[in-house]
Amino acid sequence: MKLPTLSDIQSAHKRIKPFIHRTPVFTSQQLNRIFGCELFLKCENFQKVGAFKFRGAINAVLSLSEDQKRHGVVTHSSGNHAAALALAAAMNGIKAFIVMPENAPSVKKDAVAGYCAEITFCKPTLKSREETCRLIMENKGATLIHPYNNFNVICGQGTASLELLEERSDLDIIVAPVGGGGLLSGTSTCVKAINDRVTVFGAEPLNANDAWKSFKNGILTPSVNPVTVADGLLTSLCELTFMIIRNNVDDILTVKEESIISSMKLVWERMKIIIEPSSATVLAVIKENPELFRGKKTGLIISGGNVDLKKLPF
Amino acid sequence: MKLPTLSDIQSAHKRIKPFIHRTPVFTSQQLNRIFGCELFLKCENFQKVGAFKFRGAINAVLSLSEDQKRHGVVTHSSGNHAAALALAAAMNGIKAFIVMPENAPSVKKDAVAGYCAEITFCKPTLKSREETCRLIMENKGATLIHPYNNFNVICGQGTASLELLEERSDLDIIVAPVGGGGLLSGTSTCVKAINDRVTVFGAEPLNANDAWKSFKNGILTPSVNPVTVADGLLTSLCELTFMIIRNNVDDILTVKEESIISSMKLVWERMKIIIEPSSATVLAVIKENPELFRGKKTGLIISGGNVDLKKLPF
Repeated sequence: MKLPTLSDIQSAHKRIKPFIHRTPVFTSQQLNRIFGCELFLKCENFQKVGAFKFRGAINAVLSLSEDQKRHGVVTHSSGNHAAALALAAAMNGIKAFIVMPENAPSVKKDAVAGYCAEITFCKPTLKSREETCRLIMENKGATLIHPYNNFNVICGQGTASLELLEERSDLDIIVAPVGGGGLLSGTSTCVKAINDRVTVFGAEPLNANDAWKSFKNGILTPSVNPVTVADGLLTSLCELTFMIIRNNVDDILTVKEESIISSMKLVWERMKIIIEPSSATVLAVIKENPELFRGKKTGLIISGGNVDLKKLPF
Repeated sequence: MKLPTLSDIQSAHKRIKPFIHRTPVFTSQQLNRIFGCELFLKCENFQKVGAFKFRGAINAVLSLSEDQKRHGVVTHSSGNHAAALALAAAMNGIKAFIVMPENAPSVKKDAVAGYCAEITFCKPTLKSREETCRLIMENKGATLIHPYNNFNVICGQGTASLELLEERSDLDIIVAPVGGGGLLSGTSTCVKAINDRVTVFGAEPLNANDAWKSFKNGILTPSVNPVTVADGLLTSLCELTFMIIRNNVDDILTVKEESIISSMKLVWERMKIIIEPSSATVLAVIKENPELFRGKKTGLIISGGNVDLKKLPF
């Protein structure tokens, strides 16, 4: 299995730079006071399609061969990766086939439809998603761009930390959410290669703690139908992301649903930015483990801002 | 009546610079596409206390004499000015007495209480506010810092446009919300003195259209108990702001409640930033008058982001 290196992430950054937003790094004196540490929020909620997923998707699309481009791309996703791939494909005149669980938030369905992708709905199980995807690959010759079990996607996701460390080379800790592990894989590969004294934590909902289990036991242990408000983190690690995370991540910290919700509300109220529940896990980690962060300069990867305003958890 | 000049606004900016946030100017390709013009949002929702009001309040506080500082400040406000004055006073070790209508949003009451100000609740009428204020002035010797009928407050509010024009000297139009008129007075004074070819519009809820009436008829005509979702714009112009606005503003454009609400939702969904209904009036103006803005570079003063998340209008 070929593992991404810093140089792969740097190449990805060069490749995708004309297509992505250079997202800002936000600070908040109020949050710093509340948590007793210095926080630097890398705001991927301001990324195209409202999530870091666009970085990985556009890198994967730009890395296709001409023949692959002609046959289009296909993926299954709970939402942000779907929108990201749809836009990345549309920007390059490539056809995108998107397999979505029928219970995906309507705001995410609308986003995908808005980018002219062809949507096929499936049951909200991994099995149904994968089967539907396989059928489309066979019938259309489309290339699967997996949301995280994909070298180029992981390299793209790593570019968020690359930019964060360019701006703040003095961070002690970086925290990223972990679902399938694409973001945490890219983040940890990038951060450790640039400065191995920076601690890298994964933030995971306790209710979907497969990465935590796998990390602690050393055996890949997928979740079975987890339920969490952090709907972007329902997926489980794959062999590739598990291997990268074992190599590079210092620890995975799990957080309770109520911490995720209260952290999300805190950011909305104090910072006036919209972050989705999955993003709030990184702040929830600090809320639940203040002693690990006290006095430290901590970078937080704010993964996205796609929220169904009709179904707020607070 | 002494009217503020650009030089007064520039002095205010120098005075308050160490205390305020230099707020970012945000753009959105999606919004530009939707409205067919280029928008530049001066994000005062990211200002301290979540609103431009901090600029005026801190300028007024820093302009007090030593004797005035000893006796504290007092004001009446529907919320943002109250929080702003409370924080500005606290930062300078000055006592703040705040008169608030008993029906003010709880998020705003909490903010004021959080800055250690002494709150006195009153009936939600201008008469009750002013009487309660007068009593506190008499009993405590406190200096009234009116939310907008105040030279230094107006100069402070004008500094937002000063920063906006420093960054974007090529704007065709600037739109600011108008309630009591402090922001629009400061904005229009600043903008017209720097470049009188820039058009300045005031954005006002149709349901609280006293400024529009006064502007059109040339006679100051306060509203009587207006009702609008834009709770920061319930106040009416005073002689001072009316005079400045007549001198400098090109037009006042009124907007319907549904335009305010849909514009607010659009910014939340597409830009991932939290703006309050009063701020959304500036975008509602474009929505209702697309022909005035088509192809134009338009600066929008996003006045604040203080919203009661339990009472969203959508």
